[in-house]
Amino acid sequence: MHDLLVRGGTVVTASDAFAADVAVRDGRIVAIGTGLGPARQTIEASGRLVLPGGVDTHCHVEQRSSTGLMTADDFYTATVSAACGGTTTIVPFAAQHRGQSLAAVVADYRRRAAARAVLDYAFHLIVSDPTPCVLDEELPGLVAEGHASLKVYMTYEALKLSDRQFLDVLAAARRAGALVMVHAENSDLVAWETERLAALGCTAPRFHAEARPAIAEAEATSRAIAMASHLGSALFVVHVTCRQAVDTIARARACGAEVYAETCPQYLLLTAADLDRPGFEGAKFICSPPLRSRADQEALWGALRDGTLDVLSSDHAPYRFDDPAGKRAHGADAPFSRVPSGVPGLEVRLPLAFSEGVRAGRLDLHRFVAVTATTPARIFGLYPQKGTIAVGSDADLAIWDPEVEVRIAVDRLHDAMDYTPYEGRIVRGWPVMTISRGEVVWDQGEIRAERGRGRLVPRRPRPTVAR
Amino acid sequence: MHDLLVRGGTVVTASDAFAADVAVRDGRIVAIGTGLGPARQTIEASGRLVLPGGVDTHCHVEQRSSTGLMTADDFYTATVSAACGGTTTIVPFAAQHRGQSLAAVVADYRRRAAARAVLDYAFHLIVSDPTPCVLDEELPGLVAEGHASLKVYMTYEALKLSDRQFLDVLAAARRAGALVMVHAENSDLVAWETERLAALGCTAPRFHAEARPAIAEAEATSRAIAMASHLGSALFVVHVTCRQAVDTIARARACGAEVYAETCPQYLLLTAADLDRPGFEGAKFICSPPLRSRADQEALWGALRDGTLDVLSSDHAPYRFDDPAGKRAHGADAPFSRVPSGVPGLEVRLPLAFSEGVRAGRLDLHRFVAVTATTPARIFGLYPQKGTIAVGSDADLAIWDPEVEVRIAVDRLHDAMDYTPYEGRIVRGWPVMTISRGEVVWDQGEIRAERGRGRLVPRRPRPTVAR
Amino acid sequence: MHDLLVRGGTVVTASDAFAADVAVRDGRIVAIGTGLGPARQTIEASGRLVLPGGVDTHCHVEQRSSTGLMTADDFYTATVSAACGGTTTIVPFAAQHRGQSLAAVVADYRRRAAARAVLDYAFHLIVSDPTPCVLDEELPGLVAEGHASLKVYMTYEALKLSDRQFLDVLAAARRAGALVMVHAENSDLVAWETERLAALGCTAPRFHAEARPAIAEAEATSRAIAMASHLGSALFVVHVTCRQAVDTIARARACGAEVYAETCPQYLLLTAADLDRPGFEGAKFICSPPLRSRADQEALWGALRDGTLDVLSSDHAPYRFDDPAGKRAHGADAPFSRVPSGVPGLEVRLPLAFSEGVRAGRLDLHRFVAVTATTPARIFGLYPQKGTIAVGSDADLAIWDPEVEVRIAVDRLHDAMDYTPYEGRIVRGWPVMTISRGEVVWDQGEIRAERGRGRLVPRRPRPTVAR
Amino acid sequence: MHDLLVRGGTVVTASDAFAADVAVRDGRIVAIGTGLGPARQTIEASGRLVLPGGVDTHCHVEQRSSTGLMTADDFYTATVSAACGGTTTIVPFAAQHRGQSLAAVVADYRRRAAARAVLDYAFHLIVSDPTPCVLDEELPGLVAEGHASLKVYMTYEALKLSDRQFLDVLAAARRAGALVMVHAENSDLVAWETERLAALGCTAPRFHAEARPAIAEAEATSRAIAMASHLGSALFVVHVTCRQAVDTIARARACGAEVYAETCPQYLLLTAADLDRPGFEGAKFICSPPLRSRADQEALWGALRDGTLDVLSSDHAPYRFDDPAGKRAHGADAPFSRVPSGVPGLEVRLPLAFSEGVRAGRLDLHRFVAVTATTPARIFGLYPQKGTIAVGSDADLAIWDPEVEVRIAVDRLHDAMDYTPYEGRIVRGWPVMTISRGEVVWDQGEIRAERGRGRLVPRRPRPTVAR
Repeated sequence: MHDLLVRGGTVVTASDAFAADVAVRDGRIVAIGTGLGPARQTIEASGRLVLPGGVDTHCHVEQRSSTGLMTADDFYTATVSAACGGTTTIVPFAAQHRGQSLAAVVADYRRRAAARAVLDYAFHLIVSDPTPCVLDEELPGLVAEGHASLKVYMTYEALKLSDRQFLDVLAAARRAGALVMVHAENSDLVAWETERLAALGCTAPRFHAEARPAIAEAEATSRAIAMASHLGSALFVVHVTCRQAVDTIARARACGAEVYAETCPQYLLLTAADLDRPGFEGAKFICSPPLRSRADQEALWGALRDGTLDVLSSDHAPYRFDDPAGKRAHGADAPFSRVPSGVPGLEVRLPLAFSEGVRAGRLDLHRFVAVTATTPARIFGLYPQKGTIAVGSDADLAIWDPEVEVRIAVDRLHDAMDYTPYEGRIVRGWPVMTISRGEVVWDQGEIRAERGRGRLVPRRPRPTVAR
Repeated sequence: MHDLLVRGGTVVTASDAFAADVAVRDGRIVAIGTGLGPARQTIEASGRLVLPGGVDTHCHVEQRSSTGLMTADDFYTATVSAACGGTTTIVPFAAQHRGQSLAAVVADYRRRAAARAVLDYAFHLIVSDPTPCVLDEELPGLVAEGHASLKVYMTYEALKLSDRQFLDVLAAARRAGALVMVHAENSDLVAWETERLAALGCTAPRFHAEARPAIAEAEATSRAIAMASHLGSALFVVHVTCRQAVDTIARARACGAEVYAETCPQYLLLTAADLDRPGFEGAKFICSPPLRSRADQEALWGALRDGTLDVLSSDHAPYRFDDPAGKRAHGADAPFSRVPSGVPGLEVRLPLAFSEGVRAGRLDLHRFVAVTATTPARIFGLYPQKGTIAVGSDADLAIWDPEVEVRIAVDRLHDAMDYTPYEGRIVRGWPVMTISRGEVVWDQGEIRAERGRGRLVPRRPRPTVAR
Repeated sequence: MHDLLVRGGTVVTASDAFAADVAVRDGRIVAIGTGLGPARQTIEASGRLVLPGGVDTHCHVEQRSSTGLMTADDFYTATVSAACGGTTTIVPFAAQHRGQSLAAVVADYRRRAAARAVLDYAFHLIVSDPTPCVLDEELPGLVAEGHASLKVYMTYEALKLSDRQFLDVLAAARRAGALVMVHAENSDLVAWETERLAALGCTAPRFHAEARPAIAEAEATSRAIAMASHLGSALFVVHVTCRQAVDTIARARACGAEVYAETCPQYLLLTAADLDRPGFEGAKFICSPPLRSRADQEALWGALRDGTLDVLSSDHAPYRFDDPAGKRAHGADAPFSRVPSGVPGLEVRLPLAFSEGVRAGRLDLHRFVAVTATTPARIFGLYPQKGTIAVGSDADLAIWDPEVEVRIAVDRLHDAMDYTPYEGRIVRGWPVMTISRGEVVWDQGEIRAERGRGRLVPRRPRPTVAR
Repeated sequence: MHDLLVRGGTVVTASDAFAADVAVRDGRIVAIGTGLGPARQTIEASGRLVLPGGVDTHCHVEQRSSTGLMTADDFYTATVSAACGGTTTIVPFAAQHRGQSLAAVVADYRRRAAARAVLDYAFHLIVSDPTPCVLDEELPGLVAEGHASLKVYMTYEALKLSDRQFLDVLAAARRAGALVMVHAENSDLVAWETERLAALGCTAPRFHAEARPAIAEAEATSRAIAMASHLGSALFVVHVTCRQAVDTIARARACGAEVYAETCPQYLLLTAADLDRPGFEGAKFICSPPLRSRADQEALWGALRDGTLDVLSSDHAPYRFDDPAGKRAHGADAPFSRVPSGVPGLEVRLPLAFSEGVRAGRLDLHRFVAVTATTPARIFGLYPQKGTIAVGSDADLAIWDPEVEVRIAVDRLHDAMDYTPYEGRIVRGWPVMTISRGEVVWDQGEIRAERGRGRLVPRRPRPTVAR
């Protein structure tokens, strides 16, 4: 007797699609086939697509910035929202501020997630203070515990590392078996442009894009790859937004560099023109790197298709619009450089990519599954437990209605936000049910998840290499 | 009650790998899982890899050349040999000679295959005489019947098409829904070099490579792609052998051309130096395009990995060495240009690629499955019936012992040949059992296949497009 | 006592520009400087530019086609027209038709040119019938006499060579010391498209561009370079018209191929849209390869600047519009494929390039001199006798008024044509005087040249290389 | 009556070569020709090449480092040495240390040069402290005075600028009309590697190359170009040493960046293997960026030929070997990182490039003149006064014996050094006479120059552009 049977759907993986039932016992997939034995619970999925639950490896949840600002979503709202959009695993950040013990930071985030998350999760470590103590004493233990990735910044005063620190981190990560992720923008160039614009009185949201030009991203991407290549280290470039950065990554790979790269729906679907909405409205679209041009969008879609980009994540960074703890933290007249940076996207990531990618003919269904679930799970050591539909894998499934039309509206979403940058946009295709370890957590509009049911997923370290 | 249960192996697809049983009924996979119900026959596969049976989309079987020379293998020996090496589907050629009706040619090949094949098969049509009758009257019907691919030659006097004929074929194929495959070498350049060498008395086998330089292949590849791109047609480039052709293909794709490409084990593992063996021995290594350099091998492995090359086929073209109907057709002193061109490889294709690819760390196991089974099945319209392990697919399986070491020797192989170019080479990993539509055809050294059990697999045409 | 002193102008060469007088004796430059001694004739050039007379290495003069059609210009009108536009040397063709002796052809052209030319000249040999007799017996002697270049066609039924013949020509030219020029378009592709269009009734002039697409040129360019590279031969690609061909050439050079390339003003200044003028008017713009797009124009300007293109010639091919021996040879309703191909341009080549290149900021003055005079003279073995202003060089000078504005009109030009494709276009800068071997041949609107004064300039063969 | 006549030589410029006399009056060339009038002094040059005197735009003369170390050569020995090698103009540096007034620095260098230089000179300004005072108040005046170029460092603790400072300098230079030169190495990467090597005890000279890998140079080159491109500023990259940096520059140019680049004989002729000589001997070859590989040499020669590299300068940086004020400043056991960096080369630059370039067939004679004289003069605003042989230009000439064989030896050179990295190397071709403004300063082995005769050459600013 199985615990659960998902019956009659079209099962889709990164390489295959076929009609079959999926049987689940003890939270894991035990069989995929026809005529599978009886189950305590049966879900009819005929006419539906049965996809691996999404794996979102870039999101900011219950994260406090160095200035004390907290994201709008905590581990409960974030995971509920993710579940409602077909995602079953998130990998947010455990963010070190300078002077903090990395281990203490991780313990704090673990404690909070354990109390509230409704989906499984893991943590990337943000390293802003790569002291010998952090790198040599704390990091190896944390990686061994399963926190096998870390992120560094090349921009933001409170977070950025010098090239030398970046080299230290790359070397330490390699010894410990962690993958390094990088936010690549040239800090000096951004600061220089921001000051130049400020001196001209150009502080409205629309100048955000001008202050962080594509070349700042492409330059830092090239530099980060140069350093990683020099050490023979792998590198994961987050939120690639422009053709120049895509070209840089493709070139580096052709030369043998082990570089992975990601983009996000906002860079595929919005442009810098969105920053130019009246009044402070443009602040809703401030994220970094900034939104770019239509030509960049085309380059990103092409790169998702041809494999230059591996992952489509949300970079969910939720700051409410009409909130003194959100976009207005420094007032509604704040210059763009003081507006908290980020857009929400956990819940709409998959529907947007399905509608604008698969339905619009830009991505095939297997590639959609690959970039939103299988590949991120693989790269970050969650696979095969997460990211696919295979015997032995966790029964993390999203059952999609590929035809339903949904008008996106903030009051239909489940995060803690008061706006969505996609308000009014119509998408075709949405998950009608989300299943996590065999438990239905989102069912036709109803949230069934229990606070705190999510579990930490320890991740396998990468093979360690001395140098 | 299942017909067959393959129990306890590690099932591998182009994207996944997991421990599971595979259950078969009526020749199809009905379930993949643990604890699947009982079966009439159970095969223990613990410690084994359970892979999709190989799909070999380039092989010459019971094919008569324009000069009347017959390949050594008929449909029986060829399919038996293929089965012993883990392959379950072959797509040989139905080769038109000038003046022949294409439909009659197909009927003849079908008849012969039906009588002898032990594995399932389909046919590519070789078009050497693209008259309006052939293209407009015969081709559409043949494609509709499931012969959805055809091959043309840019070289060989008896086969080659002019560019204009090539355009006619591309356009007709597009209308009919067939994919065009091309053997790309510049005929004039080869003829010119061959004559030049002959005038210098350079006719030994080792001059074969000099007479057909890489640039002749790269040029013709570029030209074929230009013509296909001009018409907006897809193109499949067979047996890519050199870095220059790889670069040409990569560049065309980056510009949006729909080009697929293939290489073969001989180009990955042998070099032009093999042509320089003493006496006539080098003739064993004469194939066209010729073997190249170590640098070209590296380029090909890289292109298999990064996706520039989609398919690894055998180009099995069996002419016996010590045989007046084989390599010695024109005597043991024949100039290289009169030696029948081709090397055998149906049986060793998968073991060589597994050993030198997967075991040697050049290909991961999923990519091995993709290039040897899933992708050729997809490109040529056999998928999902063939090429993967999925519910509903034919139960075509190869059960591998990944550790067994085998020394390749002609007398251990099952084709009709008297030599193998890999004599003495040790490979690690070999299928211990091959299953076709749920029937064991090769079992631990014993052939169990019944002559004529193989069936023609009709293939879906490509979407047709008018111009 | 000098024969001539050009006083007070700004002397410009491919590398320098300075105020100086130029002194001439016996037709050669003997001194460049200030305060040079007295002369029998003094020309005031203050406020003028003193440039090397133009060298036009691509023009069709008094040339009869295989169908008997004669160009409108004979050696008199052509050279007068050239002189009026600042050109002092032309290299037209001595065109072999199939079956003709190359030596006899050359003798015929020499005789006719000697009788009429007012400027110095040389001949490229057009080889349409590369028999062993032509290549082995005639060619070496002709090259030794100074006819050190030849041209072949990859298109046009009456002229085109097969790839094999092309290889024969390349090899023979290399042995003899001649440079091979190629008109590169894929003949089959053009024929196929022409037929396709004809079948659709698309025969108006505007379909000329569609019938000869850029890819036909790029393909043939790539093929020609492949063959030349294979033999280690140099190659000169005439009339490059599109970005794809430019890219192909640049890539070949980066790989070490010795490739030279040319474009013409019509490809820089006109587009395929000009073919779409009402009625038969578009026929005025039929030339092959055809006019392309604005984007191609930009690519060509860029390539002229950066050195990918070496030469700017006219490809003067004069067929009168309103003339049964011209564009209307097959009537005013003739399909584009039967309209004689070519546009006139000998006289306007330099003024157009000066105005649209130098004055418009697209070419610096030194690059203008290089591509219109010095480099073609160098490549074709006329340098240093022709193509520069240097002591010992022929006193072939063009004295330019860089400021004068001229409206181009057919009745102000001096060729035998009844139209110019540039009618009404205003250019800035025009030669006020042209000097050939120290003799003024064009002076402020007056032609002073004596019929037959031009001389054949024998050219140095290239170093010969055996293979 | 001319002051000087150089009679019967072969005059060579960047585009032409011809037999002619050169007549000089008041230090300037007044005529080039045959049969020029009499002169007070006549120099026979038959059988000789008459070239423009070399222009060396990268050399360190009488320059004190931030730690107080003085180069071995003062303005007298440096200019004498340069003259003996055929150079007639040098552009050393006026080097600001942090805290210094740039104007005061320039005044100091001018005073010292005026007292001792025997050749004409100009100064590049080294800016290490780009305060608003320096950039906004001092720089415009200095540029207006003719100091129209400045150099910045991306490495060396005492000199390096942050990216932000670099942007400040680029913007200020653009406003003022100065060209920015950059020493591009990633400072952090070098420091990180240096420390890593030190920790392993790897401090011998041969580790110098490992501590400053090619990727550090390529990365910084890419970054510098990104910043300049962002501002639309021109950039001059000094001492390019490796294929990766060459590729970066070529790519940037193809995208429209105005980038100029230089290499030096040491990078063309020596390799990192030279650093591995026994004992401290390797210190003679320590320069930064370091010597590279043979493959890099080939890339540099190719780039000099094809125009990717514009200039060949010496980067003469003379520190004596056996001298406590030289390479041994920190003792003979000093780690490589404390050895003063630089090699001498003012005198041998042209003979090495002539012998290994022109005579060895790697550069044609015109390209030799271009990269060693004409182009640097053009780029840095010295042309047409310097860098060519043209009427009106300064009579700065080098008369070369192209056949003479010279064995390079430190005691035959005229600088203040006790070693040359080229000791024992035989070159073919050397200037027998050097003429500066019509005065013979080096004559067949005898120095005739008078201390202090050299003059400052003010340079034209570049067009200034606001942003």
